[in-house]
Amino acid sequence: MTPAFEALQKELKRLPGVGFRSAERMAIHLLLEKPEAAKQLSDTLLSARERVRSCASCGNVCEEERCSICEDVQRGESFSLCVVEHVSDLMAIEKSGAYRGRYHVLHGKLSPINGVGPENLNLSGFESRVKEEGVKELILALPNDVEGEATCHYLTELVEGGDVEVSRIGFGLPSGASVLYADSGTLKSALDARQRY
Amino acid sequence: MTPAFEALQKELKRLPGVGFRSAERMAIHLLLEKPEAAKQLSDTLLSARERVRSCASCGNVCEEERCSICEDVQRGESFSLCVVEHVSDLMAIEKSGAYRGRYHVLHGKLSPINGVGPENLNLSGFESRVKEEGVKELILALPNDVEGEATCHYLTELVEGGDVEVSRIGFGLPSGASVLYADSGTLKSALDARQRY
Ligand SMILES: [Zn+2]
Ligand SMILES: [Zn+2]
Repeated sequence: MTPAFEALQKELKRLPGVGFRSAERMAIHLLLEKPEAAKQLSDTLLSARERVRSCASCGNVCEEERCSICEDVQRGESFSLCVVEHVSDLMAIEKSGAYRGRYHVLHGKLSPINGVGPENLNLSGFESRVKEEGVKELILALPNDVEGEATCHYLTELVEGGDVEVSRIGFGLPSGASVLYADSGTLKSALDARQRY
Repeated sequence: MTPAFEALQKELKRLPGVGFRSAERMAIHLLLEKPEAAKQLSDTLLSARERVRSCASCGNVCEEERCSICEDVQRGESFSLCVVEHVSDLMAIEKSGAYRGRYHVLHGKLSPINGVGPENLNLSGFESRVKEEGVKELILALPNDVEGEATCHYLTELVEGGDVEVSRIGFGLPSGASVLYADSGTLKSALDARQRY
């Protein structure tokens, strides 16, 4: 509608999961309906940007050198490392309570078609970390797609020769789901992952 | 995860249509994955906040005293005024090309239960505007719900006695939709709005 409005809409549209319409709705909210929210969001954004950083060990959100998970000695005693694509995946696993070891966040996955190589992922400290922390079990909690597969292959090769057991999380029907409503990709994964009963 | 991260997540969650998970995803994107985007979003937000304002006549987005629609003489020659809840509704109608008159944006709808009365809507200049611009047709393009209904009643009473024809937009089955997939509320609206064939 106006240049400054469109600039904000465009910037909001860059956020993950935000389309044209929702960016428009957000810009209207911030500029016309709740103008005090624009200042507040901007202040919070700059302050968070000052304080929040990536954990030097694992890539998780933190405000110190290392995050609370990496600083937790008990977490290290499992000698288990769970590799995830995004910090949000780490958060989801933490909320499930199903894992109590440490993590390594790649901030992406290998995708030659999108120009994402190993150098674009959080991998510079990975190998030395696996050695120094004496990791015995590497759990790959990466997406069930071609790029997740490629990333798993790459990581497995990286730790080959060491004494590390590598596994990838299971794929199939989500908890509570019925075969009827599952998409073909999920059904294929579930059939490929079948286990003797 | 950290106080500054959670503060940003909370602020993002206040945006319309943003839930806990998407706010988390956005905060991770802004703080860890694309940290340059945080500064850029904050800058764009402050600059848009400086420049963008509500049109003094209609409440639309603008960077001058009055918006381009209100400044368009041809738009005034229809003597038609379309009342909408949000600027995004105005934008949607503009994109449809189905209307070429002027608008009045309420920035909300009457909702006693949420403490929204006429004084909380963009109504201070409404009556004088209707008179000064010689509005002959008032089209109420407000939501198909109880609050939309209450707002229509209120506006109709405001212009009563003048020479203004008031109408409310039609409700029913969306274009291209089938009865099978319509919800009960839509079917009720459609049946109530039936016309002789
Ligand atoms: Zn860490
Ligand atoms: Zn205007």
